[in-house]
Amino acid sequence: MRNTYADDSLALHTDLYQINMTESYWADGMHERKAVFELFFRKLPFGNGYAVFAGLERVLDYLREFKFSESDLAYLKEEVGYKDDFLDYLRTVRFTGDVYSVVEGETVFQNEPLLRIEAPLVEAQLIETALLNIVNYQTLIATKASRIKQIVKKERVMEFGTRRAQEMDAAIWGTRAAFIGGLEATSNVRAGKKFGIPVAGTHAHSMVQAYKDEYEAFHSYAKRHKDCVFLVDTYDTIKSGVPTAIRVAKELGDKINFIGIRLDSGDIAFLSKEARKMLDEAGFTDTEIVVSNDLDEYTILNLKAQGARVDSWGIGTKLITAYDQPALGAVYKLVAIENDHGTMEDTIKISGNAEKVTTPGLKNVYRIIDRENGKSEGDYITMHDEEPAKEDHLKMFHPVHTYVSKFVSNFEAVNLHQQVIKAGEVVYENPPLPQIQAYASSSLNLLWDEYKRSLNPEEYPVDLSQKCWDNKMRNIQEVKDAIQQMAGK
Amino acid sequence: MRNTYADDSLALHTDLYQINMTESYWADGMHERKAVFELFFRKLPFGNGYAVFAGLERVLDYLREFKFSESDLAYLKEEVGYKDDFLDYLRTVRFTGDVYSVVEGETVFQNEPLLRIEAPLVEAQLIETALLNIVNYQTLIATKASRIKQIVKKERVMEFGTRRAQEMDAAIWGTRAAFIGGLEATSNVRAGKKFGIPVAGTHAHSMVQAYKDEYEAFHSYAKRHKDCVFLVDTYDTIKSGVPTAIRVAKELGDKINFIGIRLDSGDIAFLSKEARKMLDEAGFTDTEIVVSNDLDEYTILNLKAQGARVDSWGIGTKLITAYDQPALGAVYKLVAIENDHGTMEDTIKISGNAEKVTTPGLKNVYRIIDRENGKSEGDYITMHDEEPAKEDHLKMFHPVHTYVSKFVSNFEAVNLHQQVIKAGEVVYENPPLPQIQAYASSSLNLLWDEYKRSLNPEEYPVDLSQKCWDNKMRNIQEVKDAIQQMAGK
Repeated sequence: MRNTYADDSLALHTDLYQINMTESYWADGMHERKAVFELFFRKLPFGNGYAVFAGLERVLDYLREFKFSESDLAYLKEEVGYKDDFLDYLRTVRFTGDVYSVVEGETVFQNEPLLRIEAPLVEAQLIETALLNIVNYQTLIATKASRIKQIVKKERVMEFGTRRAQEMDAAIWGTRAAFIGGLEATSNVRAGKKFGIPVAGTHAHSMVQAYKDEYEAFHSYAKRHKDCVFLVDTYDTIKSGVPTAIRVAKELGDKINFIGIRLDSGDIAFLSKEARKMLDEAGFTDTEIVVSNDLDEYTILNLKAQGARVDSWGIGTKLITAYDQPALGAVYKLVAIENDHGTMEDTIKISGNAEKVTTPGLKNVYRIIDRENGKSEGDYITMHDEEPAKEDHLKMFHPVHTYVSKFVSNFEAVNLHQQVIKAGEVVYENPPLPQIQAYASSSLNLLWDEYKRSLNPEEYPVDLSQKCWDNKMRNIQEVKDAIQQMAGK
Repeated sequence: MRNTYADDSLALHTDLYQINMTESYWADGMHERKAVFELFFRKLPFGNGYAVFAGLERVLDYLREFKFSESDLAYLKEEVGYKDDFLDYLRTVRFTGDVYSVVEGETVFQNEPLLRIEAPLVEAQLIETALLNIVNYQTLIATKASRIKQIVKKERVMEFGTRRAQEMDAAIWGTRAAFIGGLEATSNVRAGKKFGIPVAGTHAHSMVQAYKDEYEAFHSYAKRHKDCVFLVDTYDTIKSGVPTAIRVAKELGDKINFIGIRLDSGDIAFLSKEARKMLDEAGFTDTEIVVSNDLDEYTILNLKAQGARVDSWGIGTKLITAYDQPALGAVYKLVAIENDHGTMEDTIKISGNAEKVTTPGLKNVYRIIDRENGKSEGDYITMHDEEPAKEDHLKMFHPVHTYVSKFVSNFEAVNLHQQVIKAGEVVYENPPLPQIQAYASSSLNLLWDEYKRSLNPEEYPVDLSQKCWDNKMRNIQEVKDAIQQMAGK
């Protein structure tokens, strides 16, 4: 009992109010005014010191295809009640604007524009919801994966979370984001096919149950698989699973590569150490121990502290759902709009919460890199016409606690944005995924370690230029004056 | 840089190990052995006293379409390395089994089979991951929505979460699940189109910013919309937003229905009470107050305790991601399999954690309803050949604390399962969504209030029949004996 349409599109994957606003803009002839929106988050997830940007590939696909299908328009007419004149207009809408974005894998921070959309007002408005839906989730998971990889370091980490993911898209795109954040492989075969991510997996408890017996099950698995990882905890890891795996491996000798055993329950610290001993004593010193079972960076850190002997980590639920913080709160705010006279004017959103006041105007973000040590001094948000690269030194000051400031000289100022769409045409080619992963890793190398630790990292500076800060204060004052005037009425 | 395929399928939306096991079963000629798997969760989410089942519609779609496409097979060959003989077999695999399921909207509990799959071993195995992916998420969200609706009661609740959902499928299917759980509307237009859910929404802060002025923006909105809800917190709710909304409504008189104002920030308790006073004093006593801003059942309960004057609640992040517990841990376990002689044998999965030991055998679940008061006494899990409806009285006892027991007489025993797939053919028609929502509500009415409170509910009895319990104990003993034997070697 659901409706299916041959011409299904993602144009309706938006909040109704976006279409309501579009109608008003169109009715008032404001729909083609140029508007500038920025997409950013205010708070880093997981108490982490940085985030890893992901989602651009899917955003570009979405914008390239953006258009209302006939069944979309019929639905809007019959079920929502829009009038024909407006629907005829909607039929013509495509995305024709410019998009500037940080690249996937980029290390990013609070309050800096990840994407900047410059487009006719209605186009920029209609795409808000989908862009946030995509970027919020993928950036969240890439960041979570990166946190896990920071703890695990050189060992292999695999994504095993599909069965607990929040529906199918999350399983697929979450896996891709996790790969960007540093994971090596996934159990999800469709993600492997779609994105070229290495796939991993051996067998489940149900196989042991089906053969009634670990000995039979392992032998049977080995018949078709040269590389064997045996799951050893179906009945009793130490009494039955590991000894049986060793027995089968000895019997089969060179016919298989006994590359590992897998533990999926029980006390991983204890069991992995015992299993390591048993494997070593049997001469299988290269056979690895793979573990899974509700792991995340915290449990891994603890297992390592307890001397767990693990070579490979399979991470499920806690990664694919970002269990300890399952949403990133990125927002999409209007920062400038064309006025009646055809010139751009800055706009601001005031809030009772000081940190929710937006920073008005068309801006750029620069990463300020110290030429001597190659490390990043912070990010520096400027008005669009500023050129920090041409300055001898910069004054960087905290955007809230303005007395916290420093002067930086001998720096490189790297503009974090690339133009990815020009007049509606995608002008950016997504790099191969391993290249994005490598970029994420090299981008993180710019950071001092104190920003990267998983617990209580230092706050990385994301500062406004003096000009940007002055402009914001001026805009706040103007709104305050207007509210006073209103209250006086 | 991703691969696209005209013949994309969901058959690869599975863990690699499922395909590895399939290969072994097939190589050993075990692939067509009849197997019985059960899908269940062990622990209710959110500390709730019940869950609301959802996901069946998508499960049926998935099973109906199940087949490996040519590009799936090519990927498995080239990238994963399976051999041609096995791939030729995979090409022929469809889902040909039987599926029994509780219906969507059913009130369900821990450790009872939500779905029972009876199918050739490989078919039942290959579908595990996708079934869990679907049911885990949708059941989680239907349950979260039901919790919220229990607190809100008669007021209207709307789903506003797309921008924070975990990618697009979650936004769409999560909205549907939320509707099953009791929500009235969604902002997601695509969900409205796809499922016939009422859509809701007005305008955003950016519209006020675009017109520079609340007065202009509200007037403009009213030009194309007879029913007006004005967002009043762009600048200052009390000083500017509410007075301007009232002014515009007075100016327009009968030309619009001033149905509401919306608050999206600040102290909702205080602001809603002030706004209510202002609206009432201006004569707009029917104009409703809609609120949103990071709400869930806890904040709503607190706002109500503080006397907030709210008529309609918009719930975003906390619902669509099930923020306080973003995954349900449903599992899928083999409970019986055909042996060499063609007869069915029970299987069990033992674990160090007593609550993780599975209950073997082909079983049914009955809801035991007291004929006198129409309330449910508990759920009763039996072996497949038991007929509790024919008993005069039942002894129900706790499956762990077995001394906790009661006798029940004058009861109805309602089998919770319906056959939804017969020999691969879908034999169940999904009811219209409003009917599923109504069923969820009537199913909840069977429960005493103590199982429904959001904090520390009583534990609803999900008991095993004596026969079922004896069978489980016998199976445990057999495995223990086998492990002893193994350890003795």
